[in-house]
Amino acid sequence: MAFGERLTEATRKVGTPLCVGIDPRWESLPLEIRAGKGGAAPESLQAVADAYEDFSLAVLELVRGFTGVIKPQMAFFEAAGPPGLAALGRVMNRAGELGYLTILDGKRGDIASTAEAYAQAGLGGARHAGVNFPVWRADSLTVNPYLGADAVEPFIQESRKVDGGLFILVRTSNPGSGLFQNLECQGEPLWQRVARQVGAWGRADAGGLADVGAVVGATQPAELAWMRQNLPAVPLLVPGYGAQGGALDALKPAFGPEGTGAVVNSSRGVLFPFKPEASDWRDKIRQAAAQSACELAGVSGMGAA
Amino acid sequence: MAFGERLTEATRKVGTPLCVGIDPRWESLPLEIRAGKGGAAPESLQAVADAYEDFSLAVLELVRGFTGVIKPQMAFFEAAGPPGLAALGRVMNRAGELGYLTILDGKRGDIASTAEAYAQAGLGGARHAGVNFPVWRADSLTVNPYLGADAVEPFIQESRKVDGGLFILVRTSNPGSGLFQNLECQGEPLWQRVARQVGAWGRADAGGLADVGAVVGATQPAELAWMRQNLPAVPLLVPGYGAQGGALDALKPAFGPEGTGAVVNSSRGVLFPFKPEASDWRDKIRQAAAQSACELAGVSGMGAA
Repeated sequence: MAFGERLTEATRKVGTPLCVGIDPRWESLPLEIRAGKGGAAPESLQAVADAYEDFSLAVLELVRGFTGVIKPQMAFFEAAGPPGLAALGRVMNRAGELGYLTILDGKRGDIASTAEAYAQAGLGGARHAGVNFPVWRADSLTVNPYLGADAVEPFIQESRKVDGGLFILVRTSNPGSGLFQNLECQGEPLWQRVARQVGAWGRADAGGLADVGAVVGATQPAELAWMRQNLPAVPLLVPGYGAQGGALDALKPAFGPEGTGAVVNSSRGVLFPFKPEASDWRDKIRQAAAQSACELAGVSGMGAA
Repeated sequence: MAFGERLTEATRKVGTPLCVGIDPRWESLPLEIRAGKGGAAPESLQAVADAYEDFSLAVLELVRGFTGVIKPQMAFFEAAGPPGLAALGRVMNRAGELGYLTILDGKRGDIASTAEAYAQAGLGGARHAGVNFPVWRADSLTVNPYLGADAVEPFIQESRKVDGGLFILVRTSNPGSGLFQNLECQGEPLWQRVARQVGAWGRADAGGLADVGAVVGATQPAELAWMRQNLPAVPLLVPGYGAQGGALDALKPAFGPEGTGAVVNSSRGVLFPFKPEASDWRDKIRQAAAQSACELAGVSGMGAA
C-alpha cells in the first residue's frame, strides 16, 4: 500500500485526523513515573530515559482508538542522551507493533551520503556492507528543505523502499517562521516556492495522495487553504494545534474530501493535561485524546463520514 | 575566552585552519578495525558502533598537531543506532580531553523548547528539573536557519552559556544547493539574506570574530569572497574541500588577516586515504592530515605567520 493510502487508512480506521506527538519532558511527567528514578530530580540520564520510555509506552496504550498516527520528537529523546535514544528505538518499535503509522520528527537535512545515512536510520534501516540494520523503523520523517533537491532525494529514495513518506518543512508554526519562509522570492513567498517543489517531488497513489507531504502550522490558516487548493495531492502535517495556540476553525481548509489529506498534531495538549502529582493521569490522557480526536473529526468532516 | 578567540587559538596553535571531519563508514574502515566485529560484514549495530569508536579514537590521536578542530558528523553515528550514539558521546568526550575545539555537525533546527532540547544536548548539557547532564559536550553546532530567528535563538542562548558557537547553514557545498539558497529574494539571493542575519545574530569578541558563524561550501568561491568582504566578523566553516571537489585556490578569499576567520573541513580525504586491507592505514592518515594541514596553512596565509 502506498504511503498516501496508508496515511488515509491510519486516520479513517479511528475516524479522526489526530496525530499524537510524543514529546516527553521530565518536569511534566507524572510523579508516579518519576518515583524510583530520582523523584523530583533525576539521578542520571538513564533514569530520565527510563521514565521517558515508561511514559511513552503508557501513552501508546492510552491513546489507542483515538489516533492512528504517532509523532515522536527526537530532540527530547536526544536530551536524555544515548540512553534516551535507545528508549526512542523501543518506543518506535512498540508503536509499529501496535499498528500506528509513525512520523519521526527529526527535521533532518544534509547532503549526499550523509542524508542517506539519516534516511536509512530513520526508515528501512542502515545498510553496512550490504547488511540491513533497522534503527528507528519510522514510516515517515520530517525533513528540512534548505539544502535543496539533491539533499532531499536520498530521503525520497529510502522512503519509497518501504512505502514510507516524508513531510517537508514548508511553513512552520512558530511566531518567527516568516523571517525567511515569507520572503518574496521571484514573485512568490519562499514557502510557496518550497511547497511547489514538494508537490513536484511527490508520487501520488491511486487515491490521489502523494508520498511527499508538507509541514504547515495550524497558526497559518491562509497557507493551509492555499496548500489544499493548489496542491491537493500533498498530505499535510499540521503542528501547533492546542498548546501552541492554533484555533480549531482555522484548520478547516487543511482537509480534502471526507476529512482526508491532513493530520493534525497535538503533543502537550494530549500528553500533559494533568499536574505531575495527579494519580488519575491515565484518565486525563485518555480524555484529552478522546476530546482532541472528536474535535478534529468534526472540523475535518471525517466525523460525518 | 569567547568563541571567536577560541576558534582562532585552535587554528593558530597548529598553524593551520584544517578541521578534520569524523565521518565513519563501515565499508571504508581498515579491515584491522573490523576484524572481530564481523570482518567484512558487521554482526550487529553494536559491532558497527564499536568499530566506529575504535577508529574515531585512533583518528583523534593520529591527527594531533595537524588540526585543532574536529567535526564529528552525527548522521553516521546515528546510522549505527543507539550504540553508535553512545560511541559518539565517548568520541566527543575524548576530543575535548585532547584539547580539540569541536563542531558537532547535526544541522539541527526546530522551534522553542524543542530547539532548546537540541541546543542543551549539543552544548552545555540537558537540564532536567534544574540538574545538568552533559550529553555531547560540543563547543559548537551546525544549525539550519529555515525556521527563522526564534528557532535559532535557543541555540544562541545555550552556546553563550559555555562560550560556544554556532555555524549556520548559508550556502552549502552540494551541487543542488542553489535551488532555494540562490533564489532572488527581495533584491538579493536568499543565502545573502541568511548571511546578513547571521551577521546580526553574532556577538564579536575582542579579536573581532563573532560567535555565530556560517557554513559556506568550498565549491562556492564567489560566496566565500562575498562573506569575507561584507561580513568580516563571521567565522566560516568551509566544507567540500578535497573529496567533494573544492579546489585549493578557491579557498583563498575565505580567510581574514593572518589566515584567521575560517576553518576548512576535510573528512574522507583525511580519514580514508587507504584501502581497507592496508596495514599502514595509520601512516596514511597521518600523512593525509599533514598534507592537508600544510596546503591549508599555505593558502590561508597562516603558514607565513
